[in-house]
Amino acid sequence: MTVDSGAVQAGRRGRFIVFEGGDGAGKSTHVKMLVAALRKAGYGGASERPGLVVTREPGGTELGVRIRELLLHGDEIEPAAEALLYAADRAQHVAEVILPALGRGDVVISDRYLDSSIAYQVGGRGLAEAVIRQVNAVGTGGLEPDLTILMDIAPGIIESRRGGSDGALDRLERAGAAFHRKVIQRYRELAAAHPERYAVVNSSATKGKVHGQVLAAVSRVLETASPPRDAP
Amino acid sequence: MTVDSGAVQAGRRGRFIVFEGGDGAGKSTHVKMLVAALRKAGYGGASERPGLVVTREPGGTELGVRIRELLLHGDEIEPAAEALLYAADRAQHVAEVILPALGRGDVVISDRYLDSSIAYQVGGRGLAEAVIRQVNAVGTGGLEPDLTILMDIAPGIIESRRGGSDGALDRLERAGAAFHRKVIQRYRELAAAHPERYAVVNSSATKGKVHGQVLAAVSRVLETASPPRDAP
Repeated sequence: MTVDSGAVQAGRRGRFIVFEGGDGAGKSTHVKMLVAALRKAGYGGASERPGLVVTREPGGTELGVRIRELLLHGDEIEPAAEALLYAADRAQHVAEVILPALGRGDVVISDRYLDSSIAYQVGGRGLAEAVIRQVNAVGTGGLEPDLTILMDIAPGIIESRRGGSDGALDRLERAGAAFHRKVIQRYRELAAAHPERYAVVNSSATKGKVHGQVLAAVSRVLETASPPRDAP
Repeated sequence: MTVDSGAVQAGRRGRFIVFEGGDGAGKSTHVKMLVAALRKAGYGGASERPGLVVTREPGGTELGVRIRELLLHGDEIEPAAEALLYAADRAQHVAEVILPALGRGDVVISDRYLDSSIAYQVGGRGLAEAVIRQVNAVGTGGLEPDLTILMDIAPGIIESRRGGSDGALDRLERAGAAFHRKVIQRYRELAAAHPERYAVVNSSATKGKVHGQVLAAVSRVLETASPPRDAP
C-alpha cells in the first residue's frame, strides 16, 4: 500500500528534475524559464517529445495545498509535527503526481523535494537526519531525482533581496538569518555528498547566465532520457 | 528538538489514560462519564487532587483540529500520507498538551492515541507495523499510556448502531464493514500483547455496567498515582 521500490523502478522511464535552494534564491523564476525553454523544444506538446509535469512541494496535490496552508501560515508547529506534515505532503505528491508521470515517461520538474526536508528540518531545525529519512521513506519508496539543481546564493544576498519586498512575512521567512544560513550550508553539504545528481548553480549571477547553467545541466540529463513515448 | 525520553520520564508524575476502540464503540460517552466521576471525586478542581486534562486524537490542539479536518473530510488520501498526518497530529499533541500536563502531575484522558494508528493503519489499511511505529517515534518519544481502555464490541453491533444514525458518513465511516472488522481484530491483538496496560471492556453491556468496569480499571491506576500536587 505504501510506495515500494517496484513502483519507483517502473517510474525510471521518465526524468525527475528538482530545484532546491533557500527562499529567495530564484527557484520559481528559473523553473518558469526552464519550462518555457523545454516547451519551445517540443516537450509537453503534441510532438513526439515526452510530456512535461511542473509541480512543487509542499502543495503539488489538492491535499498538499491544504497541508501547505497549515505549514506556512499556522503558528507554533512543533519541529516533529512540521517534519511529518512535509512528509505527508510528499507521500501524496509522489503517489498521485510524480510516479504516474515518470511511469508515462514524462519529464517532471519539481520546485523542492526530499532534500528540502534535510536542509530545513535537519540543517535549520536540528532534527536528526536519520529521523527525517525514516519518516520520508514510507512515502517516497527511495525515489531520488535524476538531477537536483541547487540554486546557490550567498546568505547576505538573500537577506538584502528580501528586505526589498514589502509583503507580509510567512512563518519560514520570519525564522531569521541564522536559520537560513544553516539551511544553505546544509544544501552545500548535500551537493558535495551527491555530485552524481547535483548541479550547483550560482544564482547571484545574471538571470541569463543562471538560465544557461540550468539548461546545460538539464540537457545532460535529457540526453540520456528514455526514447520518446511514440517511438517504436 | 524532538520529544526525547528525558521529557517522557519527567512526564511520569501524572497518569495517562487512553480510550481506544472502533468507531461507534461508545468511547466519547464513556470519556464523559469518567470525567464526571473524577470531577466528583475532586480531580481537576480546587482541591488537593491532581488536575484533569481531557483531550483527543486527532484534534487535541489547534493544529490538530485542522489536520483532523483534512483526515476526516478530505478525499483520496494515500495510506502513507494518512499515516503521516495522524503522526503529525500526535507529535503536536504530545509536545503541546500531554507531556506538559503529565509533568504537572495531572491525569490526562485521551480519546485515542498511538494504538489507533496501529489498529487503523496496520490492521485496517495494511501498512507495516514497523513503519507506523517509526513515523510515530519522532513525535512520541516512546510515551506509552499507563492505562489503555479498549471499548470492545462485536462488529455486527457497531454496524447496526451506525445504521440507526442518519447523518452524513465521514471518510472513515464509509470505509466499510470489512475494514472495521480488521480494526477491531487488531485492537484485540494489541490488548492481548500488552495486558499490563490494557483493560478490555465489553461495551455492548449496559451503560452503567460499562461505566463500572471503566471506573474499576481507572481506580487501579490512580491508586498508584504520584502524590497530589500540593502535598509536602
